Amino acid sequence: MIAGGVRVLNVGLPAVVEAAPDVVQLDWRPPAFGDVECARLAVALDDDVTHAANARALAAVHAVRPQLVGVRPARDVVPGLGDGRTLLHAGPPIDLADMCGPVRGALVGAVLLEGWAGTPADALHLLEAGGVTLDACHHHDAVGPMAGVLSPSMPVLVVQDGPRRAYASLNEGLGRVLRFGAFDAEVVDRLRWMRDVLGPVLDGALRLGGPVDVTSLVAQALTMGDEGHNRSTAATSLLARRLAPEVAQQDRGVEVLRFLAANDHFALNLSMAGAKLATDAAVGVEHSTLVTAMARNGVEFGLRVAGTGERWFTAPVGAADGLFFPGYGLEDANPDLGDSAITETLGIGGFAMAAAPAITLFVGGTPDDALETTRSMRRITLGPHPAFRLPALGFAGAPSGIDVLKVLDTGVLPVINTGIAHREAGVGQIGAGVVEAPSDVFLQAVRALHGMRAR
Amino acid sequence: MIAGGVRVLNVGLPAVVEAAPDVVQLDWRPPAFGDVECARLAVALDDDVTHAANARALAAVHAVRPQLVGVRPARDVVPGLGDGRTLLHAGPPIDLADMCGPVRGALVGAVLLEGWAGTPADALHLLEAGGVTLDACHHHDAVGPMAGVLSPSMPVLVVQDGPRRAYASLNEGLGRVLRFGAFDAEVVDRLRWMRDVLGPVLDGALRLGGPVDVTSLVAQALTMGDEGHNRSTAATSLLARRLAPEVAQQDRGVEVLRFLAANDHFALNLSMAGAKLATDAAVGVEHSTLVTAMARNGVEFGLRVAGTGERWFTAPVGAADGLFFPGYGLEDANPDLGDSAITETLGIGGFAMAAAPAITLFVGGTPDDALETTRSMRRITLGPHPAFRLPALGFAGAPSGIDVLKVLDTGVLPVINTGIAHREAGVGQIGAGVVEAPSDVFLQAVRALHGMRAR
Repeated sequence: MIAGGVRVLNVGLPAVVEAAPDVVQLDWRPPAFGDVECARLAVALDDDVTHAANARALAAVHAVRPQLVGVRPARDVVPGLGDGRTLLHAGPPIDLADMCGPVRGALVGAVLLEGWAGTPADALHLLEAGGVTLDACHHHDAVGPMAGVLSPSMPVLVVQDGPRRAYASLNEGLGRVLRFGAFDAEVVDRLRWMRDVLGPVLDGALRLGGPVDVTSLVAQALTMGDEGHNRSTAATSLLARRLAPEVAQQDRGVEVLRFLAANDHFALNLSMAGAKLATDAAVGVEHSTLVTAMARNGVEFGLRVAGTGERWFTAPVGAADGLFFPGYGLEDANPDLGDSAITETLGIGGFAMAAAPAITLFVGGTPDDALETTRSMRRITLGPHPAFRLPALGFAGAPSGIDVLKVLDTGVLPVINTGIAHREAGVGQIGAGVVEAPSDVFLQAVRALHGMRAR
Repeated sequence: MIAGGVRVLNVGLPAVVEAAPDVVQLDWRPPAFGDVECARLAVALDDDVTHAANARALAAVHAVRPQLVGVRPARDVVPGLGDGRTLLHAGPPIDLADMCGPVRGALVGAVLLEGWAGTPADALHLLEAGGVTLDACHHHDAVGPMAGVLSPSMPVLVVQDGPRRAYASLNEGLGRVLRFGAFDAEVVDRLRWMRDVLGPVLDGALRLGGPVDVTSLVAQALTMGDEGHNRSTAATSLLARRLAPEVAQQDRGVEVLRFLAANDHFALNLSMAGAKLATDAAVGVEHSTLVTAMARNGVEFGLRVAGTGERWFTAPVGAADGLFFPGYGLEDANPDLGDSAITETLGIGGFAMAAAPAITLFVGGTPDDALETTRSMRRITLGPHPAFRLPALGFAGAPSGIDVLKVLDTGVLPVINTGIAHREAGVGQIGAGVVEAPSDVFLQAVRALHGMRAR
């Protein structure tokens, strides 16, 4: 009955047939990562109620136009972070005892910066004695890359849209820095300079020159080889050039111009603050399956979804794979870390890889992989971002707004660009790469979303 | 004898078969643009002598690493441009009587700037009476965009590699500017400010901070959406950010930072000066068919080839096609103008379109056209530029070093990105687009090259 030769079309694990010639491999995975119950819940939720809620949620996110209006001490502006002994960290909430090395190191450095202890040993003792209140940045309208530690005297970027605000720490540059868990004198001295010079000078420049439109800055950078997460050279250069005339008019402005000239990652934190303000616009949109936050604390990955408000769905997080600095490898890497995945939550970073073919030199892969990553993220997002156009894809908008249901339906997980910290406190960055969100948080989310409908 | 249907494979003019369905069109053109004599000369020259000469010429060009070492008054540094009444212009040499509107307008503005006349009418009278010596920028190691007019008091970028130097005017920005033929008070006032503030401040900054590596700047900008000719936003931003700390320390540095923040094209002239220094390294390489300059004076296109030294091959030049500003069209356009095609001569600009998909918003076409243009320029160039890597083409080097023989063999003409000036003096820029070099200059060149061999 069969004329001609037999050929194989394989659906599922490529390993089954990888040695056979002429096999057509279909990129199909079982829905809901093979969890039949969750697959049924996802199908049940895939209705007009959800679609309408998601349209509202996405429109709310896309309507946000964050403006950088100031750079102020965190204690003066970040809600709940006054003169008391409180420190914020990246990712979902976590107890000190469970924290990873880099976050513990960054907390020690922040205690030293604040003068709550005089030595690293005393700082650790104070932390372990419960002398410092610890909480997640995300609970305070704030985000921070890697360890994400924020202390009251640190200056923060203030982005605003109407009455709403979001905050992010200032980027310290590469090398030995607090966000990768280093806390020696060089690190704390730099933080003092950022507190005493960088913050006030930038704030003065913004008062003089007026706010910076973050959406417009990021959009332009996406046409200039940035993806808004691991590569921020264009946004930093545009921002520095834009602010330079007003910075130059401030006392010690030259020092700040020198710092901006040397730190290619400075604009990352601004892109993060803008993404936080945008995605938070959808928090609490009833019945929406839109993801509003992805964040990692170095132990767990945390997911928030519009319809479930401020609840975190968490799962253990792995280490990123990518390119390591000489002398380091995967065995040295801390599990993935930082609030910076808020950029992917909005649709830039890993989702906008097509904008940044040169990033493959930094995170691995080829320029074609970069295009393919962005195309693949289209399968799990609600629509293109209207402002973030990608020239290499014919000016299509970046895939924006991760839908929990689409993730379960396709089995495609969000791709996150990231830095890689050494697992021990004090060492710092050892590489950069790409990581996928864990599937389990999406399974938890669909159960919770369905539970809310059932009520 | 023929089984199945007949299908058409067309070689040559597509118009012959464009209405027919299912035609395969071969992109073949007769060699030497149909000039049989030149085709024979080209074949005769295509030998080991030429290949060896071209390898030497290309290596010499690629070995040049221009450094921006200063910004000095033209009279102090440009050979042959002292305190006498001499003005330089873009393109091959041309008599005043034959010049186009924009160049005449720019000459009038330069006479006013130098104070050789008090009114535009007196300036024109002085020029027509022969009171000013006119010559091509290229005859003085210099290049200028569009009208390219350079006068003794204008500051020039000084780029250097070993003992060799090249020079370019400073970019005035967009709008009503001298290089597009405008010469009113606003234009001349800006030129005075550039002479009195911009030039000295930039020179002071370079003395303080040291030279800028032009190759490295351009190479980085090519990974950031620039192509080094019509789009210079990245190079300008990188340069401004790099120079800002030292500029801020100069008297009136704030004005300069403001100017740099507002002028996205500032780095174009630096890219041109660097390209001039590089391509001039091959001038006079015996038997080489490598193009060392392409330049337009608004009436004629001029070509120089390594093996024929400083001789110009010229032909009438057309107007660029592209995108016009509202209210203007092709009928308003001046024929193509400027020394800026020195960027394409080196292998950037139109040749590096693949680096700048967003440029299609400015010059027309689609991002896919941009990739195709670069691929097509590979057919007429001697090899990839080792420093100028294009991420969108898998980090292949930009096609560099136009070979007269390859142009004749393929019938593919060099593509040049360009601004479009209004044909009347004083109006200014009306658009931007793409233009092809005229075929006739390549026919002249092959005749001359063959003639030199025959001697």
